[in-house]
Amino acid sequence: MSEQRSTPILSEDECWERLRQTEFGRMAYHLADEVHISPLNYAVDGDRLVFRTAEGSKLLGVAMNEDVAFEVDDILEDEERAWSVIARGKAHILEGDEARDADNLRLRPWVSSAKFNVVAITVEEVSGRDFHLARPWRHMMPPED
Amino acid sequence: MSEQRSTPILSEDECWERLRQTEFGRMAYHLADEVHISPLNYAVDGDRLVFRTAEGSKLLGVAMNEDVAFEVDDILEDEERAWSVIARGKAHILEGDEARDADNLRLRPWVSSAKFNVVAITVEEVSGRDFHLARPWRHMMPPED
Repeated sequence: MSEQRSTPILSEDECWERLRQTEFGRMAYHLADEVHISPLNYAVDGDRLVFRTAEGSKLLGVAMNEDVAFEVDDILEDEERAWSVIARGKAHILEGDEARDADNLRLRPWVSSAKFNVVAITVEEVSGRDFHLARPWRHMMPPED
Repeated sequence: MSEQRSTPILSEDECWERLRQTEFGRMAYHLADEVHISPLNYAVDGDRLVFRTAEGSKLLGVAMNEDVAFEVDDILEDEERAWSVIARGKAHILEGDEARDADNLRLRPWVSSAKFNVVAITVEEVSGRDFHLARPWRHMMPPED
């Protein structure tokens, strides 16, 4: 029966609410012809997701190709429920006043570094869902050592 | 001072241990010239990450371009610590016996569906880190309503 459970679609407003309530997500980006993924701390600023990063593959990747995807989720283990929100958009590196304004956002990098760059993802589409986590193997599998 | 805290690098063995201990991750993949990201339930099978998926953009994406990145993480809120493991590799759709063998893995899709395809990511590189989460705004920001 669990195969038939629904996975409610979140509205656009609900997606943004969850983006605003979350601090950590993962960005998928191009690096030349490869796809990469990186965890990051971010803040919502209007229709943008803003994060700081040191020099590195994230910065190089978005400088070369602005197309990115971003994901936040939460797994509620006890309740066997989870949700996920995905945003797609265009990333660009902020300069001057725009970069300084990021100091007013509650924004810290996962990786500490003396040198910061500020990147904003202008979100073009969001989608999200609630999930029921069916884990029948918990009953079917022999106990592990 | 928090800017100077180190972010310990995980060994390859530690990365695999955390991949084996985790059930949910996110896959970044190409879809034509876009990068997409999707949460999924997976299992480790040797040097492969195996997951099920219904027909959709994930399946189409990896059928068109095998290059993928995969990420698992955990945030330990109380301790202001987090870790993240990233795997890059090549995805391919399993057929016949290989697909049927996936039934022996503790593997369920996030999204329930009557139609399953089984995809394996052959991992070519893993990397991972422990992070200290510096969140000074918790002390600096006025309380929210």
